[in-house]
Amino acid sequence: MPKNNNISMSVIKRMPRYYRFLGKLKDDGIIRISSCELSKMMGFTASQIRQDLNCFGGFGQQGYGYNVEQLYDEIGNILGVNTALSVILVGAGNLGHAIASHMEFERRGFKLIGAFDENPALIGSKIKNTEIYSISTLEDFCTRNKPTVAIICVPTNPAAAIVEKLYNCGIKGFWNYSHYDILSAYPDVIVENVHLSDSLLTLSYQLKNANKD
Amino acid sequence: MPKNNNISMSVIKRMPRYYRFLGKLKDDGIIRISSCELSKMMGFTASQIRQDLNCFGGFGQQGYGYNVEQLYDEIGNILGVNTALSVILVGAGNLGHAIASHMEFERRGFKLIGAFDENPALIGSKIKNTEIYSISTLEDFCTRNKPTVAIICVPTNPAAAIVEKLYNCGIKGFWNYSHYDILSAYPDVIVENVHLSDSLLTLSYQLKNANKD
Repeated sequence: MPKNNNISMSVIKRMPRYYRFLGKLKDDGIIRISSCELSKMMGFTASQIRQDLNCFGGFGQQGYGYNVEQLYDEIGNILGVNTALSVILVGAGNLGHAIASHMEFERRGFKLIGAFDENPALIGSKIKNTEIYSISTLEDFCTRNKPTVAIICVPTNPAAAIVEKLYNCGIKGFWNYSHYDILSAYPDVIVENVHLSDSLLTLSYQLKNANKD
Repeated sequence: MPKNNNISMSVIKRMPRYYRFLGKLKDDGIIRISSCELSKMMGFTASQIRQDLNCFGGFGQQGYGYNVEQLYDEIGNILGVNTALSVILVGAGNLGHAIASHMEFERRGFKLIGAFDENPALIGSKIKNTEIYSISTLEDFCTRNKPTVAIICVPTNPAAAIVEKLYNCGIKGFWNYSHYDILSAYPDVIVENVHLSDSLLTLSYQLKNANKD
């Protein structure tokens, strides 16, 4: 499949949405779908859908539409759901614990291999099948197990020192729930930020300025 | 302050980030800052910063820069942090519980007034100071207390029926952690989606396709 390496971030950020909708169609037993039908479901224009999918080589056939299962599998491959990158959770408090329990890592290309916290009450307990270790053992664990990705669920203040250690241990990607700006300090890593409070403030703004009838 | 009502969603989505950085500067005792300095911290160009802030009426003075506290307060007002919209949590399991415990609602223009779950083990317990009620009392509670916003932390399947009830009770905004597509069904409400699995897939894609050295 031909692939364009200069795909814009906005296209990439739409891919998981395609994957989600196609997964649902597949579960519902739908065999094929046109870009027009997808468009109605997803709220993108049919032309945008065709353009987006063309960035990755195009999968549709004129007059036939897309084969749902094939497109789902191809997009899954593009997104890397079969890669099983090893990931650690740093900060196993309320939020970290909930995220690690809630996410189906295996279905999204990751494998959780360890969790870390400084709270003695948590150390030794488990999240799913993964043990929570003392944060003091973090570097030793990373040296031995070489995880690729870290989920940062610690407050902003300790985050800087922890990310520095992880970076020096060779962590390549961060799923960052803290407000520490990892990419400013380490431009050569991959960072996906989840700023829940930004999302809540965006909602607040929209509600305050709603013009909808 | 003059205000442009046609502000693009991309500008709006950057506002919480300004608010965060300015809050930190304010806490650090910084009195004023130029768009160039802000630019270095935030990774936007100085020109973009000036353009963004101009959308809301402009706060800077040529050759002086921005007054940090004033700009922080003005952006806070724009985002509606002083409005205290009432919000309920629907789904107080792992993720819902963590989100409600973790978020500082009051600092972001919201007040949590109730939480709901179907699990008898949770009903009657508290999240912060908010009681968890039986989901069977949801409509009655909404009729009496008229919350403006609901946080949807239930799985996708039950979400459709719950959102329908909430919509009929007059809920105006949804902070949606489920994969149910609220806006397709109810185009007249405000929805802010948090699709954690989409974020994780975006990270997976970027790691798999990393060209960084």
